[in-house]
Formats: sequence, structure tokens, C-alpha cells
Amino acid sequence: MFKNICIIGCGLIGSSILRSAKKKKLSKKITVFDKSISVRRYLKRNKLCNNISANLKKSVIGADLVIIASPLSSYDGILRTIKDNLKVGTILTDTGSVKRKINDVTKKLKIKNVSWIASHPIAGTEESGPEAGDLNLFKGRWCVLSPSKKSKKKDLIKLEKFWMQLGSKVKIMSFSEHDYILSLTSHLPHAIAYNLVITAIQNDNKSKKEIVKYSAGGLRDFTRIASSNPIMWKDIFLDNSDNMVKILSLFIKNINKFKNAIRRGDSAKLLNIFKLTKTVREDIIKAGQDTDKPDFGRKKS
Amino acid sequence: MFKNICIIGCGLIGSSILRSAKKKKLSKKITVFDKSISVRRYLKRNKLCNNISANLKKSVIGADLVIIASPLSSYDGILRTIKDNLKVGTILTDTGSVKRKINDVTKKLKIKNVSWIASHPIAGTEESGPEAGDLNLFKGRWCVLSPSKKSKKKDLIKLEKFWMQLGSKVKIMSFSEHDYILSLTSHLPHAIAYNLVITAIQNDNKSKKEIVKYSAGGLRDFTRIASSNPIMWKDIFLDNSDNMVKILSLFIKNINKFKNAIRRGDSAKLLNIFKLTKTVREDIIKAGQDTDKPDFGRKKS
Repeated sequence: MFKNICIIGCGLIGSSILRSAKKKKLSKKITVFDKSISVRRYLKRNKLCNNISANLKKSVIGADLVIIASPLSSYDGILRTIKDNLKVGTILTDTGSVKRKINDVTKKLKIKNVSWIASHPIAGTEESGPEAGDLNLFKGRWCVLSPSKKSKKKDLIKLEKFWMQLGSKVKIMSFSEHDYILSLTSHLPHAIAYNLVITAIQNDNKSKKEIVKYSAGGLRDFTRIASSNPIMWKDIFLDNSDNMVKILSLFIKNINKFKNAIRRGDSAKLLNIFKLTKTVREDIIKAGQDTDKPDFGRKKS
Repeated sequence: MFKNICIIGCGLIGSSILRSAKKKKLSKKITVFDKSISVRRYLKRNKLCNNISANLKKSVIGADLVIIASPLSSYDGILRTIKDNLKVGTILTDTGSVKRKINDVTKKLKIKNVSWIASHPIAGTEESGPEAGDLNLFKGRWCVLSPSKKSKKKDLIKLEKFWMQLGSKVKIMSFSEHDYILSLTSHLPHAIAYNLVITAIQNDNKSKKEIVKYSAGGLRDFTRIASSNPIMWKDIFLDNSDNMVKILSLFIKNINKFKNAIRRGDSAKLLNIFKLTKTVREDIIKAGQDTDKPDFGRKKS
């Protein structure tokens, strides 16, 4: 499918692409760059890649697909370093969770003769690092592609096929549509999880201990989300700040109404909310995005 | 252990107690009351109980342990109906998620010669109904006991043993301490999950469909919590309204600060929050209240 793929950054996502692309033989050669020596050692020790590079600039030479799979805040520096070494006609993509700013950067740097098509595999877990990578991470998961104006149609089709080979279902969206939808389905939930945990622990030490002890009643599940990679999430919130500020304001408005309904003992209002949210869950199950099996109770069935 | 246990209300929790108490032979006789004919039919068809009653008043006659496992808003009516038929010296308990109001009701009704000790097994899932019941629901989970002033020490010890036989770890707390801790570990997370889902679907129909489709990035997991039993949760929020109003105000304050940090691009502030929340997750794993295995990615490992 490709002759030479270069993966820049080999954490959870990058190493999952590596594992899966190798298994499916999607490229004759795969080169991996990672700035961290411990990541490179891990890859070597586990024989995950034959071409491990510590030199970013050289790593992309000759690649016909370059995948940036590192935190959003590293993109600017990476693109400045590699841009003169990119092969004419190469497909340049990424795996980031926000698209608007990256697109601005690629425009600003005037990267020429390259098909810039953003990718976003919606497939993370709260883990990070190459040891968390998984051959089947993308299986059945959506991957959103956002082509830039200068990218070629045939390259979009090729990249689409690549993600489908990794097991993804592919959807094409504009940069701004992607950032808006994701702000609701992913960035808002994460923002809220962080704030919930912060609120729960604003207590004296004795209560804090009790709170950890009895966290199985709901809090526990939020702490899973709230322990995702800090740098990655700081970047996401700042890169998608316009959407975030708008949506957080709307959320605060809703939660104020909810608080007031509790204060005045308004059963009908509360019941209406709960019935509505129950139907959303049913829609998600219908859409195949979850099973109807419970696991907040962690049953061993 | 007991001669005659009466379980009032046989949904997820009640039927789990029934299944487990039968298996462990914790009582010579178990009587179950449920007002719903379909629940009674389910119990009969599945041979879960020999003594299924449709008469609440009679069901408690002779019982030495009475467990109310129905929604909080039903307690007042139930207690008025059964109070004159309770055996002298019987242990009266419940499984509700809020304690203050129930305790007020039992005081007000002047139920005499009975050991009123509230129980709260922290072991729900988002499912409901007797078919969701599970023999092992309480295994390794905390059960909080809150004795009233008039309950006897020996009865507290007996009830403690009962829950331990069902697999629970038992902790004794005052009514008010219980309601405060639970408002943080369980009621606040649920309130937030409902409001998150409401915020996410305040959109035109086209976006709504997209949001359901890409819900795997975080939202999906909140909808699980937000699809819990509506009546039960309406009752919890209203019964624990003092704590809820206070804690929601604190939460809103935090999320406003968070929004402002995003607005002014304050990386350091965001990173501090994320690092702090990561340590809470580590504490929860250390406390044995979760595993370190990810399942938001729904890996089949």
C-alpha cells in the first residue's frame, strides 16, 4: 500500500498504528521517530521496529506517508524541522484531537507539494506510552479525516483505505465541524471529569480518605477519564478554546437550572431530564457505539 | 442467622439480597413483597422465592429482619402501612442512598421497640429490575451502616454480620456523615452526567446524530451513568438537597475557573489540575476500589 511510512511519536496511538500496519503489511518499510530514549529502547527491546530513529529531520526522508502522532503542542516544531525533507507528493497526516490550529500552522509554514489530510482516530484509552499500544485499538472505531484545500482526492482515498485496513470506520468532516462535534463528545466530558474530581477532593484529609474509599458509587469512573495524559489534554483545551468556552458556558447554565430545580423540590423537571438522557443512551447502543452490558458494577459475567 | 427475613421491593438490590441470602442460607424463611405484578411473576417463574406477597401489611408479620429496598419516596407510605405489624425487637433496615430524611420519617412515626439501622450497599449498576439482580453484587463492595439512637448494639453487630455474609465490607457512619460523603462520591457524579448529556444534545438533529456516532471519545461513558433509574435519582437529589445545592455551587465555581484558564490560555493552571486528578486515580487503585486495567477503550485483553 505504501513504500515507506514514517511515524513521528510512538506512544499509545503511534505504537498501535505501528503494530497494526506491520501485521497487515501496509508498507514495505516503517520508520519510527521518538524523541524519548526510553521509548526507543522499548521499541528495540520488543522488536517492534527495524528503523528506529533519533533524528527527526532524517526520519522522514523518502517517506510517502508521514504520520504525526505526538502532542498537539509539538506540531509546530516538528513541521518546521521536517518540512524541507518531505518528499514531493507525500501524504502528511496526524492523529490529533483538534484540527483548526494545526491547519493554521501548516498553512502558515507554506508546506508545498504535500497532501495535508488530518486524521483523528477516536480510539484512545486513559493509558499512554508505547507499552499501552494495541494491535486492535482502531478496530470498529471511527476515524475522522479532514482534507485541506490543497490535498489531492486520490490521496484522500488512499489514506481512507489505510485507516480501514487498520480496522477503522472512516468519516470525512471539515476542520471546524470536527472540532465542534469533538468538543461535545470528548472534550467537554473530559473537562467535566477533571472538575468533578477537583471538587470531590476539596476537603480535609479525613474526608478525602473516605471519598477514595467509597468512590465505587460513581466517582471512580470519572477518575479514569480524569487521569488521561495531562500534556495532551492541556493542548486539546487550548487548541479548541473557542468551542470549549462556548460549551462550558452552556453547561454551567444547565447545571445552574438543575441546582435550582433541586432547591425548589421540582420533581417533574428532574424526571424530565432523566427520561431524556435515558433515550440518548438507547440511541448510542442502537448506533453500535456501546453494548448494553453494565460494567460500572464490574460484574464478572 | 435469621428466622424470617422480609424484603420489601425486589428490584436490582432487593433481588440481589434475595439470591445471595438464599444461597448462603442466612434465614430459615425469606418473604418478598413487591407491588408490581410483573416482578412477582418474574420471581415465581424463576423460582427465586417461595413466599411472594402482594400484601405489604401482612408480609412483615413475624419477620426478625425487615429490609426496605424500594425507592426513597416510597418509604413514608411503606412505614405507615407496616409499623403496627412489626414484631417487637425486629431489625428494620433499608438500602437507600440518602439517610437524613428517612431517619426523620422513622422518628416522626414513632416506631417503637424496633432497631432501626440504615444500610447502604454501594453496589448499584445502571440497570434495574429483578432480572438485573446478581448473587455477587455485594462482593468486595462497601456497605455503610448508620444506627439510630434507639437501635441496640447487638442488633448492629448482627446486621453487620449479615452484610459481611453477603460479601460486603462494612463501615459505620452517622446519618449526616453518610449523606455528605455520598453526595461527593456518587450524587455529584450522577448530577453532572445528566447535565453533560443534556448539554451535548442541545443541538439541531443533524449534529445530534453525529454526536451519538462519535460518542466513544468520552460521552458514551457518561451516558451509562445518566441512564440510571430516573425515580430513584429524583428521590436521591431531593432527599439530599442541602448537600447537593452546596456541592453543585462549589463545582460551578471550579468549572468557571477552569473556563477562564482556557480563555486566557493558562497552561500552567491546567497542568496543575490534571496532575492533581491523576494522583486521585492512583489513590483509588491503591485503595482497591478499581483495577488499573483500562476499559474505556473496551479492550478485549
